[in-house]
Amino acid sequence: MAKILWKPGTMIYPVPAVMVSCGSVPEEYNIITISWTGTLSSDPPMCYISVRPIRHSYQIIKKNREFVINLTTRKLAYITDWCGVKSGREFDKFKETGLTPVKASKVKAPLIEESPLNIECAVKDILPLGSHDMFISEVLAVHAESAYLSEKDNVFRLSQADLIAYSHGRYFELGRQVGTFGFSVKKRKKK
Amino acid sequence: MAKILWKPGTMIYPVPAVMVSCGSVPEEYNIITISWTGTLSSDPPMCYISVRPIRHSYQIIKKNREFVINLTTRKLAYITDWCGVKSGREFDKFKETGLTPVKASKVKAPLIEESPLNIECAVKDILPLGSHDMFISEVLAVHAESAYLSEKDNVFRLSQADLIAYSHGRYFELGRQVGTFGFSVKKRKKK
Repeated sequence: MAKILWKPGTMIYPVPAVMVSCGSVPEEYNIITISWTGTLSSDPPMCYISVRPIRHSYQIIKKNREFVINLTTRKLAYITDWCGVKSGREFDKFKETGLTPVKASKVKAPLIEESPLNIECAVKDILPLGSHDMFISEVLAVHAESAYLSEKDNVFRLSQADLIAYSHGRYFELGRQVGTFGFSVKKRKKK
Repeated sequence: MAKILWKPGTMIYPVPAVMVSCGSVPEEYNIITISWTGTLSSDPPMCYISVRPIRHSYQIIKKNREFVINLTTRKLAYITDWCGVKSGREFDKFKETGLTPVKASKVKAPLIEESPLNIECAVKDILPLGSHDMFISEVLAVHAESAYLSEKDNVFRLSQADLIAYSHGRYFELGRQVGTFGFSVKKRKKK
């Protein structure tokens, strides 16, 4: 392969495109779409979101020190994009999108009902890193759509939720499954 | 939708499954597959990887304070999985996988030639968070496969690289494109 050398940039892809809900009372509720997010540690479960200080949600999350990460799907792609480009200063995003705020279990920020999976988070630390501040957070609770929990084998199949990924300016559905974790060392079943 | 409440866990998906290459000399070179990775800030470009201290690569990265993030593809899925479940204490992973180490521009750690995009990183801080330590890092340089750079319009099309995503224990190809960033507010072209 022939490679070209680029200037430094943010090219880790594909990443999620989650809707982050925040606010402690309905008048303050807002939604911001975030791709600079991920898991930091498995036990205790720690995650992060990075937010530009200019964003409307930044002050809300900084003040309340809590938020909810809502995974997004093919069906939610249009709304996901819209919540990323529009500001809560100008729009009541729940009202405009028709998304439904639902009471969370540990935080005051609302869950988004239409999302298949909601992650309640408490901010532990805020790191200024340049264009973005990083909110280092602990996962307090997870809500999962019961339709994807098989009654047969009690396995949760997130793969049925039609999640979307964000890669270099584009949103994609997940496509063909190419393997499961550990498939490279699993013995094949005898026929 | 009906939701079930779960105990806290790490459920932000889909995420990348990158191969991280490290080591300052060939005898030390190693590859570890990481999904707890992402962008922290756009300017300066900052990213992270989280690594369990027990992993062989952990000490190498901690000592050298640098590494390379190599994006992975459908074709590299099997090797990606293998580098995640096997240890560099037992295997010379470049030799076993046939991957090619290539000299980087700013760090001593090698690029993986077969990857379509390599990101050279310098560690700025190490945060112990529990099961994993987080390596907060700055992007020093990016190498991109020239085949995906269109001569016609000088646009880099990462979407042609067949990247894979990792979601709740499974590797997936990226599927159908559902939109580009900002598509929800773009005016449609007149016919």
